[in-house]
Amino acid sequence: MTRVLFDLCGIDEGLRFSPYCWRVKYALAHKGLEAEMRPWRFSDKQALAFADYDKVPVLTDGNEVITDSYDILRYLDRTYPEAPLFGDALAQSRAHFIRHYAERSLAPAMMRTIVMDLFNAVHPDDRDYFRETREKRFGRTLEEFHSPAKGLAQLDAALEPLRGCLSASDFIDGDAPAAADYLVFGNFMWARCVSSADLVSNADPVYGWLERMLDQYQGLGRNALRITDVEGAYR
Amino acid sequence: MTRVLFDLCGIDEGLRFSPYCWRVKYALAHKGLEAEMRPWRFSDKQALAFADYDKVPVLTDGNEVITDSYDILRYLDRTYPEAPLFGDALAQSRAHFIRHYAERSLAPAMMRTIVMDLFNAVHPDDRDYFRETREKRFGRTLEEFHSPAKGLAQLDAALEPLRGCLSASDFIDGDAPAAADYLVFGNFMWARCVSSADLVSNADPVYGWLERMLDQYQGLGRNALRITDVEGAYR
Repeated sequence: MTRVLFDLCGIDEGLRFSPYCWRVKYALAHKGLEAEMRPWRFSDKQALAFADYDKVPVLTDGNEVITDSYDILRYLDRTYPEAPLFGDALAQSRAHFIRHYAERSLAPAMMRTIVMDLFNAVHPDDRDYFRETREKRFGRTLEEFHSPAKGLAQLDAALEPLRGCLSASDFIDGDAPAAADYLVFGNFMWARCVSSADLVSNADPVYGWLERMLDQYQGLGRNALRITDVEGAYR
Repeated sequence: MTRVLFDLCGIDEGLRFSPYCWRVKYALAHKGLEAEMRPWRFSDKQALAFADYDKVPVLTDGNEVITDSYDILRYLDRTYPEAPLFGDALAQSRAHFIRHYAERSLAPAMMRTIVMDLFNAVHPDDRDYFRETREKRFGRTLEEFHSPAKGLAQLDAALEPLRGCLSASDFIDGDAPAAADYLVFGNFMWARCVSSADLVSNADPVYGWLERMLDQYQGLGRNALRITDVEGAYR
């Protein structure tokens, strides 16, 4: 079986920072499934034409082509039901809420903090595309949007539910991580790969969870290349 | 069987605004269980001495005494497994996250908006207690803490995950409400009972959910007494 995950890469082909791809990489590891992690760049739209999609993650699994990180996780549960990611119908609905928490509360706060790091981490050929699409989304220039002070204050507020939850259990999903942990942790891998910003203090209950998540699956996250490992990455 | 829920009341004995008690009232209705809703005030500590607890909700069910809204919901699922509130282990862990979202993201934003309404709604005999405990918690006077402008801005940001989730499904828990909906909705009943503030615009995806929740169980929420129904409630 050929299983391929198209995975965003940056200035170095080994620098893989897409939060959505990280969700899938952790979900594959959760299921014990191997896949080729094929590097992809924003400007490689042609490489995804077969999937009728223009973003990653895209997963091919034998003859199946699945797009969108959330749909890929659901596909994995349907196709490989051992070691469930989602659980029953109520668990699935609540994971959907937590997905939106990651995308609408955490991600914008982090983006505000790391956007210039991110711009620096994307491949030079991708920077015009990145600037154009993000400036359109933010309604201002990257430089105007960039504000670590505002971003960190926003993140501090957004982390509150996570703090409450992780004061009582090791993982969002209880004693072991599952879909909710991966949906949220993808954002932290995104920031970790492109930036050296300290987003969470070591006095925060979230910190211990980040450490545990980095260690999962033989250090899947901890061993990932970071921008600080790339020689000459800072212009 | 005698089932009694000790339920916070305010300036009028019919004014029942505790967000935690509202969770339980919806959960009882979800299970089709009857209970006497016994009015209680902050200063009635003696009335809860039998439960070794000083806050509501307290539920007595035959010989069982259960305190804390979350524990009461779990007790109801254990004792009356029909019409589950929580679901499987993953669903339960995610409900725990959503509980913290309600308590740590939504509640502080709402509190900032409605605290003076709340002060006005509590029974006159309870006001000294309310002021003292809340001022200690906020580290400033109620009047200094009160800021609808700041509270509404905070609430607007905090509503984001709920908006995402409710754009795709009728309830947080899918096609029908369950524990996650009640955990969050309790906060909105709290604000609705004591205040006429518009917390959510009718253009917001959250608005439709609020309307659906108010209508559940023969209008359990919609028919609840509000401060605006109490004659002479505004000094």
